[in-house]
Amino acid sequence: MRVLVVNVNTTRSITDSIGAQAASAAAPGTEIVPLTPAFGAESVEGNYESYLAAVAVMEAVRAYPEPYDAVIQAGYGEHGREGLQELLDVPVVDITEAAASTAQFLGRTYSVVTSLDRTVPLIEERLRAAGLHTRCASVRASGLAVLALEQDEKAAVDAIAEQAARAVAEDRAEVVCLGCGGMSGLTERVVERTGVPVVDGVTAAVKIAESLVALGLSTSKIRTYAPPRPKTIRNWPPPPAR
Amino acid sequence: MRVLVVNVNTTRSITDSIGAQAASAAAPGTEIVPLTPAFGAESVEGNYESYLAAVAVMEAVRAYPEPYDAVIQAGYGEHGREGLQELLDVPVVDITEAAASTAQFLGRTYSVVTSLDRTVPLIEERLRAAGLHTRCASVRASGLAVLALEQDEKAAVDAIAEQAARAVAEDRAEVVCLGCGGMSGLTERVVERTGVPVVDGVTAAVKIAESLVALGLSTSKIRTYAPPRPKTIRNWPPPPAR
Amino acid sequence: MRVLVVNVNTTRSITDSIGAQAASAAAPGTEIVPLTPAFGAESVEGNYESYLAAVAVMEAVRAYPEPYDAVIQAGYGEHGREGLQELLDVPVVDITEAAASTAQFLGRTYSVVTSLDRTVPLIEERLRAAGLHTRCASVRASGLAVLALEQDEKAAVDAIAEQAARAVAEDRAEVVCLGCGGMSGLTERVVERTGVPVVDGVTAAVKIAESLVALGLSTSKIRTYAPPRPKTIRNWPPPPAR
Amino acid sequence: MRVLVVNVNTTRSITDSIGAQAASAAAPGTEIVPLTPAFGAESVEGNYESYLAAVAVMEAVRAYPEPYDAVIQAGYGEHGREGLQELLDVPVVDITEAAASTAQFLGRTYSVVTSLDRTVPLIEERLRAAGLHTRCASVRASGLAVLALEQDEKAAVDAIAEQAARAVAEDRAEVVCLGCGGMSGLTERVVERTGVPVVDGVTAAVKIAESLVALGLSTSKIRTYAPPRPKTIRNWPPPPAR
Amino acid sequence: MRVLVVNVNTTRSITDSIGAQAASAAAPGTEIVPLTPAFGAESVEGNYESYLAAVAVMEAVRAYPEPYDAVIQAGYGEHGREGLQELLDVPVVDITEAAASTAQFLGRTYSVVTSLDRTVPLIEERLRAAGLHTRCASVRASGLAVLALEQDEKAAVDAIAEQAARAVAEDRAEVVCLGCGGMSGLTERVVERTGVPVVDGVTAAVKIAESLVALGLSTSKIRTYAPPRPKTIRNWPPPPAR
Amino acid sequence: MRVLVVNVNTTRSITDSIGAQAASAAAPGTEIVPLTPAFGAESVEGNYESYLAAVAVMEAVRAYPEPYDAVIQAGYGEHGREGLQELLDVPVVDITEAAASTAQFLGRTYSVVTSLDRTVPLIEERLRAAGLHTRCASVRASGLAVLALEQDEKAAVDAIAEQAARAVAEDRAEVVCLGCGGMSGLTERVVERTGVPVVDGVTAAVKIAESLVALGLSTSKIRTYAPPRPKTIRNWPPPPAR
Repeated sequence: MRVLVVNVNTTRSITDSIGAQAASAAAPGTEIVPLTPAFGAESVEGNYESYLAAVAVMEAVRAYPEPYDAVIQAGYGEHGREGLQELLDVPVVDITEAAASTAQFLGRTYSVVTSLDRTVPLIEERLRAAGLHTRCASVRASGLAVLALEQDEKAAVDAIAEQAARAVAEDRAEVVCLGCGGMSGLTERVVERTGVPVVDGVTAAVKIAESLVALGLSTSKIRTYAPPRPKTIRNWPPPPAR
Repeated sequence: MRVLVVNVNTTRSITDSIGAQAASAAAPGTEIVPLTPAFGAESVEGNYESYLAAVAVMEAVRAYPEPYDAVIQAGYGEHGREGLQELLDVPVVDITEAAASTAQFLGRTYSVVTSLDRTVPLIEERLRAAGLHTRCASVRASGLAVLALEQDEKAAVDAIAEQAARAVAEDRAEVVCLGCGGMSGLTERVVERTGVPVVDGVTAAVKIAESLVALGLSTSKIRTYAPPRPKTIRNWPPPPAR
Repeated sequence: MRVLVVNVNTTRSITDSIGAQAASAAAPGTEIVPLTPAFGAESVEGNYESYLAAVAVMEAVRAYPEPYDAVIQAGYGEHGREGLQELLDVPVVDITEAAASTAQFLGRTYSVVTSLDRTVPLIEERLRAAGLHTRCASVRASGLAVLALEQDEKAAVDAIAEQAARAVAEDRAEVVCLGCGGMSGLTERVVERTGVPVVDGVTAAVKIAESLVALGLSTSKIRTYAPPRPKTIRNWPPPPAR
Repeated sequence: MRVLVVNVNTTRSITDSIGAQAASAAAPGTEIVPLTPAFGAESVEGNYESYLAAVAVMEAVRAYPEPYDAVIQAGYGEHGREGLQELLDVPVVDITEAAASTAQFLGRTYSVVTSLDRTVPLIEERLRAAGLHTRCASVRASGLAVLALEQDEKAAVDAIAEQAARAVAEDRAEVVCLGCGGMSGLTERVVERTGVPVVDGVTAAVKIAESLVALGLSTSKIRTYAPPRPKTIRNWPPPPAR
Repeated sequence: MRVLVVNVNTTRSITDSIGAQAASAAAPGTEIVPLTPAFGAESVEGNYESYLAAVAVMEAVRAYPEPYDAVIQAGYGEHGREGLQELLDVPVVDITEAAASTAQFLGRTYSVVTSLDRTVPLIEERLRAAGLHTRCASVRASGLAVLALEQDEKAAVDAIAEQAARAVAEDRAEVVCLGCGGMSGLTERVVERTGVPVVDGVTAAVKIAESLVALGLSTSKIRTYAPPRPKTIRNWPPPPAR
Repeated sequence: MRVLVVNVNTTRSITDSIGAQAASAAAPGTEIVPLTPAFGAESVEGNYESYLAAVAVMEAVRAYPEPYDAVIQAGYGEHGREGLQELLDVPVVDITEAAASTAQFLGRTYSVVTSLDRTVPLIEERLRAAGLHTRCASVRASGLAVLALEQDEKAAVDAIAEQAARAVAEDRAEVVCLGCGGMSGLTERVVERTGVPVVDGVTAAVKIAESLVALGLSTSKIRTYAPPRPKTIRNWPPPPAR
């Protein structure tokens, strides 16, 4: 089976690292295809950039020329999953929801540790919209921007592990979700520092996508995610960048 | 004061009717500037089209060359308001929230009557995200598509009034909100048929925008709606359509 | 248009300052009429006094001999708005709800800073009953009694600004509402100290009342706020005080 | 022990029937003292009348010259209990809450059957404020006014039993609360017709009041129900009616 | 009337102290019969032990040979009450719910102080399932195991009073419930240290059981708590221990 | 990997059919081991039987002599999963939660169709405790007892499909979960009749268990699901049945 894993950022090195993370969890026979959007922010950290990423991700998927079996939207707390579900017949998995859903099988409560403080509300909103908030103990920010995570891994681990440990001690979290695509790969070291299970959204999403495909399940088309009605879409998509 | 009223659909006749509706409620001294997005669906009825409208509305506002005092996003249940709040220093008012917020001053509960059944979940989500759902008795669909509302006004009034009446009788709504930009202008006739106050989102938004400006209030920039951080945005905005 | 602004306290100097605050926000053509109840506590700080104020405010409005277009109940967290809505055909606006409703257009979350700790539960209850609680980050008390606010303005500003700043930093509030009629006038200085928008309930209520009147909207009479049924009311209202 | 049972209506025959109902449940050694307020509506059916009853009940209790051990406010869905709790050192029990609290020991869900449709929202609000709403399946109205209950008992039983039966069948209620002081005495016949336990608020309140007294428990005075602060209360209470 | 009070622990000295506590609150004419389960943990502190206690309590009641009028399950936060309600025709009262329900008549919010940290989630779940959580300010652990409470009463009082005081000061609790059968008897000293009403679940349950019996009320049998359907139960109950 | 799939009923033919259903979804290399409890009801349909099943399932797992990698509790709406999580180091998956969690990736809302009306409250409680209730549109009963499902498959399909169709049309469900272990195998025919995705809890649980094992994740041991403390457990487990 082929699974598209779409980065929300336009930075290719993040796509590469998300792709590698996804591949590390893929079952034999699962081909991971990482995609980078053709337009948008180098790192998505707020609503404007996230809305832009939402449409850029949709266009990236629509432009992909080969068949595929599932799509993973690899952005934490980002907009857009519902649009993909309308457009596609195959299952769509958002990593925010994949991580939370997986965490709920591991402990009574979970916390998310994300990058910047301003990202916290976006994640909270996505969890609430997905009905995955009642067991969320907290969403905490490490204070590190997405691109900073790439540049100083030692500092990243420290800042994230610090917040993860406080989530466990102060917010009574029993599981920690790493709330940023760029955090993939830090899982093991955060486990060591906190003693609780740590869920990475990308790998969790891969297993969920594989499971849905294996069970022959895909998005319900009866109401919310029915295909768009036939109509005129003006001046869209934009001409390809040169 | 100048208030931009941005249609989410790319159909200019809808922009015209929204603009006229807004102007009818504007105080002396308030200039209403209706805008149509440069790209997107002729009528927005679902998540894909709504996400596209979200970015198209943001670009329409960014492309507007003159100063202005407030922005109204004139789409019911659409995505995007949070992005505008990040980008702008002036107040941003979404008509879904304006209608609900106004309705809550008029009765204990309110219902929304919208166009298509598939739009119901989007409106419910916006109301919940805005914390305006606890007094929402129901969101009901008339079954008429957005463009159909324009074409057969008599049928539109009948279908909408029928659902409004059922909301009052069956769902115990005490106020009705007309949940579609294109419904502006039907208010009076729905009042006649139901006997309860009927709130039109566009006019409600105009008064709220005027009030915020008069009180010297605008969006808090401290966290969720802080301006986007400086960074590279690739291949965006798209080149202007010819 | 004429708007009655009814103090809940029987202290006339508070009525005067509320009236001045309301007038400062009124549009040209809006006449503000401040009213003081004929009976009740000099300052309302608890349930017994608040219930008494509820009926005193209703009687003050009933006793007002001239026509009017809207009524503002200028008490924070007080009982009684629902009773006024039954009695009157014109819109009724409570300042607690006006402030919260306005704050929700300005940030994702808001906090209220009120006078005494014992007032906190009353405000929380009003916000919950009004469906305006889900975005309320906290209700905090400055520790200053209502009348103390009048006597030492410097101390009042300090105590209030301190709690406002903590609401922003600790409770993640993005907007602050000043939760006491007597706090009107301190807005500007709290903005300076916190850097977030500060909403004053009295001025917010004036704009909402004006907007409702301009839109031709008033209380739904279909169920909760239907006029009282004709019946014998014994020994009420009390004879006028000499 | 002596328990004051205060009617919210000023109709003495209702006081008598409430008093008799209370007495029927009282333990040996419990003296029931029924009180009628000195002012207010002959039957309380709405917010204005309910707010008036709230202060009238408080004054009736304050005017009672003998010692007593507990107070029951015998009105369904009425305002005022919090004020009594501030004023008094002895336990205060509201019959709306007494019935719901008792019902929760008897089944997973309960419904309330009350008099008029307009009373439904008041009861819903009281239950929510009291945190007793999550197991409330519905509040239904028989359509009979409070005084009508007294006049045609056969019709009253029929109308109430009909709604009780629908609550069980349609709303999945497992227990029914009779939501009106005047309904006391109909319990047995509603049990016969529905086959589920039927709770009468007055008798439930008597047992709770007795229990609290027996356990030596009374209202916490630490915050919400602290005694009113010493201050000037102008022109209150009203002079006694001649 | 005869009331069975069933310990969830298999330690007889705890049964004795629960029995004594229950008897101290019983009305004249109420016979308290304390029961100890035939199998299970010496002290119940977690889900496995609690599920085991649930069935052991049911079997202990089924094995009791004499008639009785009500059953009290004397474990804080334990599973099983719903099963007893299916099996029995007489009222069943859980002490967790009895304490919370009683506390709600005494203050706006309450906290529970229990033994170990790991017991906190169990109590929170029971309160939520019972619809008694919305006014629960917090559930706090003293850090003392159940059996330790018996061994060093002075240390127990200190640890419990410390958490009770913090619940009042930090969590804004207005009432404290002692959340462990073994804590019965410490009530008075915790009142002295906190100044708020302290509710003991065992005595509260006795009064509620007596009240239900006096009112002729018992469990609704219409749906959730209908008697088990006739069917084969294999290898159960276990043979009596020698 | 080896996955234990534990029936909650003591009827072996149900164990067989659950085992076959599980095996049909297992990846190559996953060995499914179906277990039947040594004691308890032939079919679990209520709280008493469910509590008994909870401990019987725990004992069945404890008695299993070989190593294993995950445990699935194959009962819909049953008690006990938390106890297993305390006892075991490997992941534990409940089919009620597995189905709901999977359904949430497929549509905005889901409904559960179960066997008997009396089972509805148990399922609702489990979903609420698991934080999976906010997107649950309804839990509906087909009216068929667990054992009846086995005896007349045609009638079972008809009754279940009827309720599934009503859930979609009336409750706005977009996905249907088959809420009974015995329903495994009917999935395909219910899809044909409703046109929405149908989730079977057993197969969903198998994929989740496999995923957790593949990701190296297991139950958090930090608080709620810490291993039972060392202590005396009297007269338990019961002697093996002859």
